Amino acid sequence: MNTTPVDELGTSAAQVRSAELEQQILKEPGKFRILTGDRPTGRLHLGHYFGSLHNRVRLQDLGVETLVVIADYQVLTDRDVADNLTGYVEELVLDYLAIGVDPARSTIFTHSAVPALNQLMLPFLSLVSVAELNRNPTVKDEITHSRQSAVSGLMFTYPVHQAADILFCKANLVPVGQDQLPHLEVTRTIARRFNDRYGSVFPQPEALLSNAPLLLGTDGTKMSKSRRNAIPLAADADETARLLKGAKTDSERHIAYDPATRPEVSSLLLLAALCQQRTPQEVAEGIGSAGAAALKKVVTESVNEFLAPIRARRAEYAQDLGFLRETLREGNERARAVADVTLAEVRTAMHSDY
Amino acid sequence: MNTTPVDELGTSAAQVRSAELEQQILKEPGKFRILTGDRPTGRLHLGHYFGSLHNRVRLQDLGVETLVVIADYQVLTDRDVADNLTGYVEELVLDYLAIGVDPARSTIFTHSAVPALNQLMLPFLSLVSVAELNRNPTVKDEITHSRQSAVSGLMFTYPVHQAADILFCKANLVPVGQDQLPHLEVTRTIARRFNDRYGSVFPQPEALLSNAPLLLGTDGTKMSKSRRNAIPLAADADETARLLKGAKTDSERHIAYDPATRPEVSSLLLLAALCQQRTPQEVAEGIGSAGAAALKKVVTESVNEFLAPIRARRAEYAQDLGFLRETLREGNERARAVADVTLAEVRTAMHSDY
Repeated sequence: MNTTPVDELGTSAAQVRSAELEQQILKEPGKFRILTGDRPTGRLHLGHYFGSLHNRVRLQDLGVETLVVIADYQVLTDRDVADNLTGYVEELVLDYLAIGVDPARSTIFTHSAVPALNQLMLPFLSLVSVAELNRNPTVKDEITHSRQSAVSGLMFTYPVHQAADILFCKANLVPVGQDQLPHLEVTRTIARRFNDRYGSVFPQPEALLSNAPLLLGTDGTKMSKSRRNAIPLAADADETARLLKGAKTDSERHIAYDPATRPEVSSLLLLAALCQQRTPQEVAEGIGSAGAAALKKVVTESVNEFLAPIRARRAEYAQDLGFLRETLREGNERARAVADVTLAEVRTAMHSDY
Repeated sequence: MNTTPVDELGTSAAQVRSAELEQQILKEPGKFRILTGDRPTGRLHLGHYFGSLHNRVRLQDLGVETLVVIADYQVLTDRDVADNLTGYVEELVLDYLAIGVDPARSTIFTHSAVPALNQLMLPFLSLVSVAELNRNPTVKDEITHSRQSAVSGLMFTYPVHQAADILFCKANLVPVGQDQLPHLEVTRTIARRFNDRYGSVFPQPEALLSNAPLLLGTDGTKMSKSRRNAIPLAADADETARLLKGAKTDSERHIAYDPATRPEVSSLLLLAALCQQRTPQEVAEGIGSAGAAALKKVVTESVNEFLAPIRARRAEYAQDLGFLRETLREGNERARAVADVTLAEVRTAMHSDY
């Protein structure tokens, strides 16, 4: 289930299909409903922003119906997060509002607030085998990387819960990275098997692969909260300057964009370029042989300028926790209404609407 | 987790504890709440009746608060049942009403109708490891006996769903057979871990082991629907006579109660004795050396006489499907109200009551 055919140009079938879908979205955005979201594990960072958040807001603004799940049941094994869940969830909503997720057009909700969504786990679990769950490469990977001594039943069944997140609202499109394709394949399998078994209720959602560039963290590895190498959207200008000052570069004074041989310098150029909406090559030309310090100065200014309006909005929303909580309450209510309708259809299809 | 210490007399700690609990129930029945139930897989039979149903009604009549779950999500892998779920569920409710489960005092419900119960699966799954689920002997056994080519995720996580069935209503007592002790241990473990982790919400329910005698089916093996050797409560007098006529016995003309060397004859004596409220020895004495045919005649008459009022009530209720459906609707509503309160407590304890 994890095979993505790749042609000679290195373009996968999923990428080709995503390009087609992009065309269809531009023509008829109203035909699409996307489910996207995050685990509430801390402040979102620039890797998230340019990797997925930016695209999410773009789709919303194009008129695609958007649901954003805060996957609060998928952080329970992290004791620190679980003990301060409300705070982590509110931080995430603040980040969403700051980047332009519009609660009037997008539904922001926590899956723990939607019992009918969670109930879908039961029929869905009957449609996958333990062997299939064992084979899922993303779960394997998460299990390898988890700091837990034992794999919990929740982590093991995570792709089934994700299927419930996606299918409760009948999303037909899921923006994902390449590494999440196997998860989505579980969702598609469950939808197909449910429909074959009980009658057509669910769409088989398609992957919308982003062509987002990969940003490295300040240590030259993948930008990630848990590696402490990320620049949070909510960081202030000074924190950003400090983080970027410590960023890994190389000893060559001439700054050039060459991801293969100079990954750290190139990632910094890319970051500045994304913020300035220019190409990394253009940014590099502007720096020339002024060295790493000059590069970091450019990047810091670009990031701070780019994030300034986002940070300003975030600070404003942070003053108004009432609005934030109301946003979540309304989103949860909307999600519950959607889930109740779907569960009623599921129960009718399963002959369990006594 | 599956070790039941057994003393020299063959009495397990669980049996000793159950005897103590019986004394407490007689003194203060109002202190106990039991959760019991069945999978809707077909007509209940005499093995069910004398094994557990009889005891369930006895506890209800003593004043113990009783919830009866119809485990309709746990039959999905049986295609025949799943395709006719409403019928199977209604048959089960008819059986319950016929044997004296009183909807005014007992709550009969289907777990598929209680989203907040099913949602408990999520936090509960985070509290058990895949290794623990793999070790559960009852699941192992069910996996061995299942006719499925692959073990479904639902079967694998079944003890966790059962924990949700038991804990959603904070049952503190669960009537079980010896073979179900490991399942209940999973529930107790989940309750304990939840309380340790998030604060005290759940009781650790205790097992109430029945000292019910084991009835053999007409072929001399354990009475079971799937072995087609059972006498259904709803069978009519003629069907009962026919089933018992085909029952396995032995060639000795003298009828005596000796379970070790004459299991089939002894089980038939036991069945007649249970129906007549006498001892098997007394029944045997009444037959003497009249042989197997006489024994079967006595058993058939005893069973038919015993079941006559149950069958009459069942026929009456079968005429009034409106009442039956109302019973289920009311039970489901009551169960939902209970589950909503518990889930609200769980969400507060987990800091997810945004």
